[in-house]
Order: sequence, then structure tokens, then C-alpha cells
Amino acid sequence: MDLASFLSADSQVMQPSLIRRMTGLVNQPGVISFAAGSPSAQTFPHERLTEIFDQLVAEQKGMLFQYSVTKGNAQLIEAVRARTERVQRVEASEPETMLVSGSQQGLDLIGRVLLDPGDAVFAETPSFPGGVDAFRNYRARLFGVACDDDGMDVDDLAQKVREARASGNRPKLIYVIPNFQNPSGRVWSLERRQALIELAVAESLLIVEDDAYGEIFFEGAAELPRLKALDPTAPILYMSTFSKILAAGLRVAWIMGPAEIVQRLILAKETADLCTSTLSQKLILGFLERGWMEAQVATARAFYQGKARLMQEGLSRHFEDIGRWTPPRGGLFLWVELFDKSIDTLPLLEISVAQDGVAFIPGKPFFVDGSGAHCLRLSYSNVTDDNIGLGLEKLSGRLRRAS
Amino acid sequence: MDLASFLSADSQVMQPSLIRRMTGLVNQPGVISFAAGSPSAQTFPHERLTEIFDQLVAEQKGMLFQYSVTKGNAQLIEAVRARTERVQRVEASEPETMLVSGSQQGLDLIGRVLLDPGDAVFAETPSFPGGVDAFRNYRARLFGVACDDDGMDVDDLAQKVREARASGNRPKLIYVIPNFQNPSGRVWSLERRQALIELAVAESLLIVEDDAYGEIFFEGAAELPRLKALDPTAPILYMSTFSKILAAGLRVAWIMGPAEIVQRLILAKETADLCTSTLSQKLILGFLERGWMEAQVATARAFYQGKARLMQEGLSRHFEDIGRWTPPRGGLFLWVELFDKSIDTLPLLEISVAQDGVAFIPGKPFFVDGSGAHCLRLSYSNVTDDNIGLGLEKLSGRLRRAS
Repeated sequence: MDLASFLSADSQVMQPSLIRRMTGLVNQPGVISFAAGSPSAQTFPHERLTEIFDQLVAEQKGMLFQYSVTKGNAQLIEAVRARTERVQRVEASEPETMLVSGSQQGLDLIGRVLLDPGDAVFAETPSFPGGVDAFRNYRARLFGVACDDDGMDVDDLAQKVREARASGNRPKLIYVIPNFQNPSGRVWSLERRQALIELAVAESLLIVEDDAYGEIFFEGAAELPRLKALDPTAPILYMSTFSKILAAGLRVAWIMGPAEIVQRLILAKETADLCTSTLSQKLILGFLERGWMEAQVATARAFYQGKARLMQEGLSRHFEDIGRWTPPRGGLFLWVELFDKSIDTLPLLEISVAQDGVAFIPGKPFFVDGSGAHCLRLSYSNVTDDNIGLGLEKLSGRLRRAS
Repeated sequence: MDLASFLSADSQVMQPSLIRRMTGLVNQPGVISFAAGSPSAQTFPHERLTEIFDQLVAEQKGMLFQYSVTKGNAQLIEAVRARTERVQRVEASEPETMLVSGSQQGLDLIGRVLLDPGDAVFAETPSFPGGVDAFRNYRARLFGVACDDDGMDVDDLAQKVREARASGNRPKLIYVIPNFQNPSGRVWSLERRQALIELAVAESLLIVEDDAYGEIFFEGAAELPRLKALDPTAPILYMSTFSKILAAGLRVAWIMGPAEIVQRLILAKETADLCTSTLSQKLILGFLERGWMEAQVATARAFYQGKARLMQEGLSRHFEDIGRWTPPRGGLFLWVELFDKSIDTLPLLEISVAQDGVAFIPGKPFFVDGSGAHCLRLSYSNVTDDNIGLGLEKLSGRLRRAS
């Protein structure tokens, strides 16, 4: 039986993530890895979560393991709404809010509900492949928009929107990560934020604002307003997650946007997974109810800030002559652009792991337009303090020799 | 901004589940509810899960809350493979097996990977709306196949396959729940199982075998072979879940099928939710490793068997003159077909709840062809023993008056 002939048109475009295919290579024991994109498990408050678990079981018994409603636990939605209003200054009513099984599900549901084949999605260069791939898997056409240190070049975005229209691709979504982006660590300036919203409104485009890293800012970094806080009536789907500030493996994130769309996302979630883990939702609710979140976020911030400071020191010592990098202001990642644009970091990875025992993620998988070969992403979340300087020294030697 | 114009063609066909829309009505306090389709939280082993949790945290600390791999925890996959081979007699190699975030996600991923708009899916009448809706949301065309007490009428299936071809709908999937089906409680005979496989092979169709209830069989019920056990080389996607035998809210299920398709399902899961809750997977792994599953399943079986016996008694006392029902052999549901086919149980539900304080699920939402109005589903998982007879007596009075 020819099983290949059974595959849907959608599934025929699906490709394994380049980065996830590198997992085996970059996770070898003994390798200093700047590759792992996950938050550090050291920041996950396992003792407090245990305290909550034990109390929840005592009170709720088996009900802790029962199904829950599709849109998310009502109390957790209320707690998330209250905190997002206070902390991110993003306001959303109850019908404008839903919980999802991690940001990745949020991105997938957005694609499901909004994208038809050929629709145009505009993404930063570089951008987060999990988001870009989710949209591409609905056979959307991805347009990479030029970016600089201040964010997206909104003139280039306007140009790309025209190109999309001219080529018969209906412009629908702009996918952005304005705070401490994965992979670049970039923070958008206030002016760019405002310009993006203006363009989106003028061109009737929806903005997907992925704020996964917004709370992980370092001392001295000015916290800039979320797009949705700048203009609460603009067509923005705001997303954030508990994965970076609390615990990634619980798989809980949230979406806030126009009720008309959120209600459709809930419908799509109904057949996508019925509901998010009840246990995960109640553990997080317990954490918020006990008022532990702000101290927890402060702990995570301090953890990443300490690592980022060591990264900055190591890069200043070893990379000044090789490339430029994002000044670390928050998040989990630094981005290096090599001065020598002829270097392709993809084939270098294997050599670097084998010869030097140092891993990173090459730049190319982060670009929807195939560029970025001379770049690399350095994550500091899972490298020990002692290994940061050592790893950067070795890596700089490898890159210097490749030039 | 006209947000409706942004919706994808898929999202425009999505409808809220009729059954989930009834949730408010049927869950009123004080109502005797034969409506709730969830397993009983009393069967979820919360004390043992707590013991596992505490030990896991002590050993793994924050890693218990870290991301995991898309296809599922490797040790849990091994444990599931070993147990499914031993208990369900279904064999699958490692690349033929994956974990999903509940059966609902499995059904959705199968639709995603296999269905294009207009493809034909064949389902039992009645069938499980969560499965049917998942496929319909990919704009598949659903064909209801006639069924009797022994399962699907395979001649009618052959006829419907011809009809689909004639109308330009490519026949792709047959969706079946051969053991203690939700909603009918029906068990397919061995002959029907064999006939189905033969037809699927002859007509080049994939079978989705949803075995969510297969382990909840009662004393005296002959355990019939799974389709995939009858013919390991036939094109069958076998699915089962921990939701009914262990804990629904953990959201863990599994799929076993041809590696070529399972690998595509894993790709689709990568952008659908990245990974299933790590905590959920490790709790279940701990349960299996400690050898607690067989005793747990026996407890669940005994619980439902006790309820089903009371249902049988109550129905014999009050329903003999009103309708016929599935003999309870396993699962969580009984199905009643009223003798008076002019009765529509849908409008009766509201009256029954308001006047008698008794809830059930009307038959119609379970039929893809719009029939079944004179039927009702009775779930016994969440009714107290004392209320079973009382509820059935009241309900029988209401149905008798409606006739």
C-alpha cells in the first residue's frame, strides 16, 4: 500500500526543524554547549512546586487529575489577566483571554485559525523557527523583513507587504518578538514599536506579539511597553508563557487578543487537545495565589543576568576582532554576526563539537530567506559559569581559523 | 477592521461541540447526571501519584519541569510498547510508536497529516464526536456507516466507499472504536473485525482504531483481539490512552502505526505543541515502573462494573417498556434506543433537568448523518450508587410521558 499517497498537502511541506535535528550533536556529554535553547532547570522552583502539589492533592484528591475546560481553568485565567495587566500592562477581558498548552500550541492554533495556503506572513530576520515553522506548515508564504538593532525596518516591511500583494499572497500576519528575541536578544525601540502598529493598522494586518522573554530583563535595561499596551485597540494577538519564568515542562502559556479571534482559537483547541494538563494549570495557579511569582521571576532574572555578564566578559576578551554581538539586556540568547561574511557556521558546528568540544547554533536556520550563514546563536542558560569563558575562548579560536 | 475576513477556510467550518455546549446545563448542582463523559476521579490513584511525584522531585529536581522530546520520553515509550504488546497484544517497533498529549491530540494530528479538504472519512453511527469533529475540522467529508450490535455493517461501508468515490471524495480513513465504544458501549464481533480489515486492505483505506476503553471490560466479557493484533501488517493506526485507566487530566496517550506515518505525525506534533508535559510523562512512567498498573486497572474495572450492574438493574426495572439498551460489558457508557422513534431527546434534556433534576446526553450529536434523535447516552461514571436507580426511574417517567 502506497502510504505516501495518503499524506495531506500540509504534511508534505513539513520539515524537521534543523535545530532539533542538531540535538544529538550538541548534547554530547562533555561538550560545552551554547546551543541548548531551553531555560535552565536550576531556575525551576521544584521545592515550592512540591509544596503546592502536596497541598493540592490533600484538598482535591483525584480531581487534580481530571479533565478541565478547553479555554483553561477559570481561576488561572483570572490570575493571569490580573497579573498581565499589572506586570505587562496588557489588558484583556475574559473572552479575550485563553490558556494554551505552551506557546508552541498558541502559534499553531493561530496558524490554523488564520492561515490559508499562500497567505503571507512577515517575520523578523532572524526569527524564532518554532513560530515560522508553525505558520509555514499551513503552507503560508513567509517573507523575511530586514532588521537592525532597533527592530524591524518598517519601510522594508511595507515593501514586503506590497511584494506579497503583487505576487497574489494575501498579507495576514506579522510575527514579532520585540523583547529579547530568540535568537538575537534584540529589543525593539519605542519608535519601531509605534511604527509597526501604525503600519499594521493602515494595511489591515494582524500582529502576533510573542513575549516569551519579556520578563527576563537585566538591571539597567529600560522595560519598553508591549505593543498591545501601546495600542489596546490595535489588531494584536499577545502571547506569553510560564516556560521561561517558572517551568517549561508544565506546558502552559496564554493568548490575549480580539474576542472574535480568541473564541475561534478556543474552538480549534477543542479538537486539538481538548484541554491543557489540569495538574500543570493548578500548580501554576497555586504558585500565583501564594504570591510567589515576583520573587521567582527575580530569581530567574538574576540567574540569567549573572550568566550574561560572564558572556559579555568572554566575548569582549575573545570576540572583539571576530564579530559583533547583541549587548546582553535580557533573555537567554546572544547573537554574533561575524565580520567575515564568507564563513558558514553550519559546517563549522560539527568540527567545533568534535575538535573543541564546544557547541552553538548556526545562524541560517533562523532566517526565512536563507541568509544568516555567517551568524551564530549563543545561549547561556545551560552553561556553567566556569565554562563560559573557556568555551568562548575555544570557539573564537575555531572561528578565527575558519576566516 | 473586518476580523472575520482573516479566518482560514478550516476555521470557518469549526463548530462548538454540541455536547460541550450542554456542559452548563448538565452540570448543575443537585442534578443526577448521566451526562458527564469523563472517567470518575475516584478511580485516579492520587496517593500513589503523590508518592511518585515526591520521589521524582527528590531525584530530578528542576529537570522534572524541563522540556522533553517531541515524540515522547524514550523510557515511557519503551514501557508503553512492552505493556501494549503484553496486554493488548499489539506490537510496534520504536519508530512505529509515539506519545501524544491525549487521544484528542492524536486524532487531530492524524487529520492534519492525512486529510485534505473533501477526503472521505467513514465513521460508525453513532460515533465519538471528538474524533469526528477533529476530522471534519480539516474539511473532510464524513460518511456515517450503519451499525448493529456486532459493529459496523461492512457491506454498508463498502457501499459508502463507492458513494464517496462516485462523488469525488477520496476514501482515506475508517474511524472505529471496536471496544466499549463511546457512546454506544458496543463491542465488535470477531467476524466484523476481520471483515473490516479485509475491506480496508482491498480498498486501500487506513483504519484508525481508537481503543480508549479496551481495558475497562467487565467480568465474563470475552476480550476480543484488537484489529492491529489480528493483522499486524494491515494499515492500522492504533491509539490508546492513560485517561480512562489512570488519570485523564495528565493528557498522555499513544499511537502505534506504520513508521512512515508515525514519523509524519511526530513532525506535525513538533509545531503543534513541541512536547507533552514532562511531569505527566514521568508520573506515568513511575507508575508503570513500580508495577502498579495492573492493580490500578483492576480497581478501575471493578469500579465501573459495580456502577454498570446498578445501571442494568435500574434499566431492567424502569426501561423494559421504553427502549432497548446495550448490555453492559465494559466501558463507561450505555446507549438507549427508544421504541418510540418519534421522540427527540434533545429538547427533552432541558425539561428533564429543570423538572426532574436528571441529565443525560441526547443521541443526535453522535451521528454524522443527523439521525439518532430517539437515542440517548447514559454514563454511569459520575453518578453515586444511590442515585442510579432513582435517576433512571425519574428519567423513564419523563420518557414515557413524552411518548
